[in-house]
Amino acid sequence: MSNSANNDNPVRHKLRRIIFGTDTPAGKYFDIILMVCIVLSVLLILLDTIAPIHKQYGELIRTSEWIFTIIFTTEYVLRLYCSINRWQYARSFFGVVDLVSILPSYLALIFPGANVALALRVLRLFRVFRVLKLLRYLSDGNVLLRAMVMSSRKVFIFFFSVSLIVMVLSVIMYVVEGPNNGFSSIPKAMYWTIVTITTVGYGDITPQTALGQTIAAATMLIGYSILAIPTGILTAEISNEMLRERDLRKCSNCGRHGHDKDASFCNHCGTELEQMDLHQKD
Amino acid sequence: MSNSANNDNPVRHKLRRIIFGTDTPAGKYFDIILMVCIVLSVLLILLDTIAPIHKQYGELIRTSEWIFTIIFTTEYVLRLYCSINRWQYARSFFGVVDLVSILPSYLALIFPGANVALALRVLRLFRVFRVLKLLRYLSDGNVLLRAMVMSSRKVFIFFFSVSLIVMVLSVIMYVVEGPNNGFSSIPKAMYWTIVTITTVGYGDITPQTALGQTIAAATMLIGYSILAIPTGILTAEISNEMLRERDLRKCSNCGRHGHDKDASFCNHCGTELEQMDLHQKD
Amino acid sequence: MSNSANNDNPVRHKLRRIIFGTDTPAGKYFDIILMVCIVLSVLLILLDTIAPIHKQYGELIRTSEWIFTIIFTTEYVLRLYCSINRWQYARSFFGVVDLVSILPSYLALIFPGANVALALRVLRLFRVFRVLKLLRYLSDGNVLLRAMVMSSRKVFIFFFSVSLIVMVLSVIMYVVEGPNNGFSSIPKAMYWTIVTITTVGYGDITPQTALGQTIAAATMLIGYSILAIPTGILTAEISNEMLRERDLRKCSNCGRHGHDKDASFCNHCGTELEQMDLHQKD
Amino acid sequence: MSNSANNDNPVRHKLRRIIFGTDTPAGKYFDIILMVCIVLSVLLILLDTIAPIHKQYGELIRTSEWIFTIIFTTEYVLRLYCSINRWQYARSFFGVVDLVSILPSYLALIFPGANVALALRVLRLFRVFRVLKLLRYLSDGNVLLRAMVMSSRKVFIFFFSVSLIVMVLSVIMYVVEGPNNGFSSIPKAMYWTIVTITTVGYGDITPQTALGQTIAAATMLIGYSILAIPTGILTAEISNEMLRERDLRKCSNCGRHGHDKDASFCNHCGTELEQMDLHQKD
Repeated sequence: MSNSANNDNPVRHKLRRIIFGTDTPAGKYFDIILMVCIVLSVLLILLDTIAPIHKQYGELIRTSEWIFTIIFTTEYVLRLYCSINRWQYARSFFGVVDLVSILPSYLALIFPGANVALALRVLRLFRVFRVLKLLRYLSDGNVLLRAMVMSSRKVFIFFFSVSLIVMVLSVIMYVVEGPNNGFSSIPKAMYWTIVTITTVGYGDITPQTALGQTIAAATMLIGYSILAIPTGILTAEISNEMLRERDLRKCSNCGRHGHDKDASFCNHCGTELEQMDLHQKD
Repeated sequence: MSNSANNDNPVRHKLRRIIFGTDTPAGKYFDIILMVCIVLSVLLILLDTIAPIHKQYGELIRTSEWIFTIIFTTEYVLRLYCSINRWQYARSFFGVVDLVSILPSYLALIFPGANVALALRVLRLFRVFRVLKLLRYLSDGNVLLRAMVMSSRKVFIFFFSVSLIVMVLSVIMYVVEGPNNGFSSIPKAMYWTIVTITTVGYGDITPQTALGQTIAAATMLIGYSILAIPTGILTAEISNEMLRERDLRKCSNCGRHGHDKDASFCNHCGTELEQMDLHQKD
Repeated sequence: MSNSANNDNPVRHKLRRIIFGTDTPAGKYFDIILMVCIVLSVLLILLDTIAPIHKQYGELIRTSEWIFTIIFTTEYVLRLYCSINRWQYARSFFGVVDLVSILPSYLALIFPGANVALALRVLRLFRVFRVLKLLRYLSDGNVLLRAMVMSSRKVFIFFFSVSLIVMVLSVIMYVVEGPNNGFSSIPKAMYWTIVTITTVGYGDITPQTALGQTIAAATMLIGYSILAIPTGILTAEISNEMLRERDLRKCSNCGRHGHDKDASFCNHCGTELEQMDLHQKD
Repeated sequence: MSNSANNDNPVRHKLRRIIFGTDTPAGKYFDIILMVCIVLSVLLILLDTIAPIHKQYGELIRTSEWIFTIIFTTEYVLRLYCSINRWQYARSFFGVVDLVSILPSYLALIFPGANVALALRVLRLFRVFRVLKLLRYLSDGNVLLRAMVMSSRKVFIFFFSVSLIVMVLSVIMYVVEGPNNGFSSIPKAMYWTIVTITTVGYGDITPQTALGQTIAAATMLIGYSILAIPTGILTAEISNEMLRERDLRKCSNCGRHGHDKDASFCNHCGTELEQMDLHQKD
């Protein structure tokens, strides 16, 4: 009952090692079974929306769905029970995801036919992240994340400029093509412009007049050039981040990382750096 | 009446601080209200082109449109009144945009049914730039702009080569597919070629003969390779521009460039570098 | 009968030089003839699936197909006969490909109408690799391969994130558009999301409601930004790999790396560099 | 009549300066008039293929076409007449283009209805290159060209691998979807695979079965990743070429260019390089 760690009973301690840890065989099996359950339950939700499958196996899927809900509810209660600081777990990202992934099933009992509940149930997939314990991949993910954060301001300017171009092109196409050729309103013309400028090109709305097709061709070429920009920004940032990552030397005085490859002195405090063991690098 | 700054009356001075400045609470509120007005007025113009909305709310939108026009006219007159050099303001980029964004409403009174006036009204969105006072983003925007200017000659050669390739492929497809399969003229075939080479692919015109489909497949593969070029050029230029941003300080001892933005010591000889004014940079 | 190399009879030795080697005129002719046979036999398989060609030339193609099968069978038996270690050859990549490319024809005799057999027969094309003796291209291929291996973890995280985004967007679109507009199930909505996010845009399923089109437009823009990431990762890795290719020699005086491939002297201290074995590199 | 330069008569010399040179006012006017003629004649050929324009202005266009042919024929004869080495001019790239751009009109007289002749006439556009005297852009064009030549082997391996992947995917889709869903033959399935893998996505052939759509989704994702490779290769090569371009220092001993930015000694002969004026660089 108590939240303090010192009067931790052995059962709770052992459960915590199984549920939160991965260093025991039982902990590993728990993770694998949980991951299979998550993937299976999401797959069932997806398959249930296919009409012929719903017709034939609907009852079976609903039963399995409830079994999974009970499993996940038990797991959530156990996690709450054995975590050292319960309130902290409940408020953490994964704590919320764990709750959100079981709530919709119960809500569907109270408010039948709630379609949105279905959407929330798919959020279960986020729980896979927890099981994968993506520790090994974290440093690589960090490079991507930092590259994106570093370039976020450039990307914002880019999106602002793109939306202005989309606006101007949409108005021109709305005036040129008009409602008779599918450009029934400026928002519809904006939809067309985005479909064209991102090179998706559904073809549900296409220019019919010669002038419209000329402007469309120009839109494609301009759009293509514009959209090379985010690729360029991201590539440059990822390159920078990777170069920074590669240099693992640490200053013996101030402990800084990330020196240039050919640096002989720390650029922060001026201490001479040890020579890099290049064989270790390759 | 006088344009000179010395006989500036206090009302005009205060107005200028509110309208052009952002350092007073009143100036900040003015900017926020103006930005909301701009976005709302543009949204109304867009929504008004949707037939059912125009039918039901047309009168309301027209009234709001006039209220916004009066607001923007008042603002334009006030800006003219309180700017130190009126003629300079009127000729400046934002002065022209401010005028252009209110003129169409008045023109629509004189020449009813002018569709082009509508297009000009959307230019109001450019005024958002002014309100955003994109100072913080300017240095990032500059990198993009300089990268594009630096690569403009390469991009020109690229577009010239692409248009030649488009021309040759269009003639071949016109000869191979012919008017019966939708390639009714060479300009139409050029439209198809650009739709294909930019990977937009509407599908409103598609090759029907086996030979045409083979040439189309070749077009796609060649086109894809060709269009990797502007991405490559831009990426390389953006990388260069980013590197140059770091390049500004020079070691007073060994003369080395290319230090990290946050470096305090030269990484080659350990001499202390002069401090960078980071506020200016950020 | 014996696998040992010492009691190698001269016929077997000569055959091995012709079949596996390229240093004799006979060996070269053998390779050229084999390559023509492979390409022709694959072309025949492709053409045979075109209905009018099958009708008119079906008998001819079937006969040729058997001739090629006999040629390839003879070749396989000869390769087995004259290879130094037969079992090693049979288990090698090309040994398996050689077997797989002749088996389907015989299987089609036993199990008539096996369509899958057809698919396996096309694997013959892999044998072209052997004939091309892609030695000259190997070092370039290695750069690509290493770049891909180096970035595989980043790519894995990327694909995992993309599949989560696809899942969430599919559920939203399924709820918003519903079965009446072609989004008949979540898997179908996932198909649409991938078609849209990769900018393929068939247009067989398109959003019909205003809200759906807005989400679709957002999907395209987000998707486009996301998909710039693998390009960025690969470009950065390929750049790195290319730089590393230059990195192999070390100055004996100052220990510097990173000399140009064709450099003869260290660009830092002017000491002569050891000659690079260019034939090994090229 | 004589080809030797010494008995060059003054008229021929003056003509050569006008036709081949750009340093006299007459030479400049000649170039401008010629360029206008080329662009106009190509525009006429394009417009003539549009049915309503051909109906109304067909006679006028045919007359103009003949006027242009006579102008270009005169120009070709003059070029032949006044060039120092006539045979060398006739065999040069632009000599052949000049001839090819006038021949089709005469051929159309002898063989009426030759559609291919039309295609050749469009080659006139290549002549614009000559008039543009793309000297200013040549160094930039060289970077692109060298980057493409440098990466041609990688691109070849890439295209070979792509064609293998296309082949395998086509066969799978042909077996899965079959002739009833538009995949009537393997070549048709290959057309679909290329349309999909390059993200063109016409939508004229789309998978109908659930399995087919799953494979199609995988094709798109795999294809997208694969096609990031040529972009990556080109970007890396262009970056390399640009870096090499930037360094303009020349070795005083062996005359070599393209040293590294921070090089102190020529990497070819070991001579000390002059220090780079860095202010000139920025």
